[in-house]
Amino acid sequence: MTTSDPTGLHRVLDEPVAGSLPLPQAARRLDTRPTLWPDEVRIRVERLNLDAASFRQLESAHDGDGDAVRREVLDIVAERGKMQNPVTGSGGMLVGVVEEVGPESPLGLAVGDRVATLVSLTLTPLVIEDALEGWTGEDEQVPCDGYAILFGRSIAAVLPDDEAPELALSVMDVCGAPALTRRIVTTYAEESKIDGEASKTDASGVTVAVIGGGGKSGSLSLAAAREAGAGHLIGVVPTDSEAERLRAAGLADEVVVADARNPVALRDAITKAGGPADVTVVCVDVPGCEGGAILATADGGTVIFFSMATSFSAAALGAEGLAADVTMLVGNGYVPGHAAYALDLLRANPGVRSLFEGRLAP
Amino acid sequence: MTTSDPTGLHRVLDEPVAGSLPLPQAARRLDTRPTLWPDEVRIRVERLNLDAASFRQLESAHDGDGDAVRREVLDIVAERGKMQNPVTGSGGMLVGVVEEVGPESPLGLAVGDRVATLVSLTLTPLVIEDALEGWTGEDEQVPCDGYAILFGRSIAAVLPDDEAPELALSVMDVCGAPALTRRIVTTYAEESKIDGEASKTDASGVTVAVIGGGGKSGSLSLAAAREAGAGHLIGVVPTDSEAERLRAAGLADEVVVADARNPVALRDAITKAGGPADVTVVCVDVPGCEGGAILATADGGTVIFFSMATSFSAAALGAEGLAADVTMLVGNGYVPGHAAYALDLLRANPGVRSLFEGRLAP
Repeated sequence: MTTSDPTGLHRVLDEPVAGSLPLPQAARRLDTRPTLWPDEVRIRVERLNLDAASFRQLESAHDGDGDAVRREVLDIVAERGKMQNPVTGSGGMLVGVVEEVGPESPLGLAVGDRVATLVSLTLTPLVIEDALEGWTGEDEQVPCDGYAILFGRSIAAVLPDDEAPELALSVMDVCGAPALTRRIVTTYAEESKIDGEASKTDASGVTVAVIGGGGKSGSLSLAAAREAGAGHLIGVVPTDSEAERLRAAGLADEVVVADARNPVALRDAITKAGGPADVTVVCVDVPGCEGGAILATADGGTVIFFSMATSFSAAALGAEGLAADVTMLVGNGYVPGHAAYALDLLRANPGVRSLFEGRLAP
Repeated sequence: MTTSDPTGLHRVLDEPVAGSLPLPQAARRLDTRPTLWPDEVRIRVERLNLDAASFRQLESAHDGDGDAVRREVLDIVAERGKMQNPVTGSGGMLVGVVEEVGPESPLGLAVGDRVATLVSLTLTPLVIEDALEGWTGEDEQVPCDGYAILFGRSIAAVLPDDEAPELALSVMDVCGAPALTRRIVTTYAEESKIDGEASKTDASGVTVAVIGGGGKSGSLSLAAAREAGAGHLIGVVPTDSEAERLRAAGLADEVVVADARNPVALRDAITKAGGPADVTVVCVDVPGCEGGAILATADGGTVIFFSMATSFSAAALGAEGLAADVTMLVGNGYVPGHAAYALDLLRANPGVRSLFEGRLAP
């Protein structure tokens, strides 16, 4: 191909089927040439963060033999031109420094910027040049010298100077959740006219429940709901010890312990804590939370599903079976400005910081 | 239980696990006593419509032996107190006449109303009293004498006098799609103030694409988008013959043929037909349409997934991988007033009627 496509289609090397190519994520093999198309960016890679599910699979397939894990990662990247675990289908993200920016790149990056990619490694052309010599193969954090390519529609966030890189990465990894939570809470705010002219939104009547409020995406979502002005915040956690930590963080008005897989228990717990919720945010990675989230949500309310364990049909049939007039959103990991917003929440909320640092502590 | 729960929890006969009961849909066995709790309704059943996937499974498991199929349905209903295929997990719907209405029922039904239930048989207490003598077991339409119970949160729609029951049922079966399409198109309409006071919404700038526009839910969604005032309607169909039928029905401004599983082809076809779309409605029951629907949608637009073949993770990761700022909705089959609205669309649109009648014709 002589012209580039913002999706990266011009780097897909698969044979066309019926005249058409798969997108890079679904492709077997990507073109990794270092020369840039005009809308691309090349990154000098410093570190790969393998997706946790992918690393676990590799580790267990090779019985914890780090050399074998390293060889398999090298083989995958050499063969496919990207890091995509063939069993889990997942990738990860990378950290590096911008090496060259095409003249038509819309990403707003400059040479020398230290960035994290927020699109998956499963669609990022990647060449490893140091045979991963600095990696034992025993950890999902992979020191790496090499280069990667970003497309016109990719996303990368500049790492902040004032935060530890591990903490910043950990926040950026889930930054879609708070940004979308803020957006949805705002849609429930009432417009209050001032002097009949200027107007301002008032979300103080909005109740938000976050299932898994003590986790990474959950605590950021609580902070986002507060920042958006929501009047009543309910955090749901699975254990007393997690409840204690979330209470200490001060991010919710009410913290309740409930099993999110038990629909009636979840509904009753949220109702007792001041629900039903206008906005329910599901942040727990266990299957079977759809019914409870729907039942805990007020008529006309919205459920945002951020858990990858969500079943589309369980949500759709569950709401229909309960005659629940709720809007259900597939949590989109991309909202413009999401990374900067999540870092702002980290800086403004000591409670968020303490929960994140507690998770990173060895 | 002495008091009823609007979800029907009071009729679940399963043993509680950790002090809690599953909802009726997930329950093993329901209480089918004919005596009503105050918020319930009892229906005299005339016909069961088994879910197509369920009937196909039964038919093939018994090699087309109708007597064996009938015996299995009788066994399931006798054992579980509801019709839920243990393999497919699905049920179906029923038609009958209201026999008794509890004094606190919120459903608005009167004794003698002929109704179709719009919640699944998988959560509806059912007793069969005629041993299904009128059924050969060779057809998913099951003549039946017996009774069924509706809960406070169930849904039933009164069948219209002026339409053939098969046609009305066929419309009601997919009535969530047009109601939600209308609601979403309306959110994209601009408010235009008239004399600074009264206001009216103008959706003439809204472009809607319906993937699978020639099908049942698709054609109704096109008609709903038109009724809501959308300015430009694009119908996408898989074959030339279906394109011809949809053009003849006059429901779309542009009809294009594209394979919805091919993301780039779908995007290009919709762009050429006047897209990208502000609202994209996915009504085709084949897997792999998430990427194309996302790519065909404008920044800030909405994708409504009505297909049960939708993959939650493909939608979530697909949008993130494409840095697509789109809102993605799990199509909820319940929107208040949905059945009456869908029938209104049938009556107002000869094109919708002709497509539906064409499908019902033997």
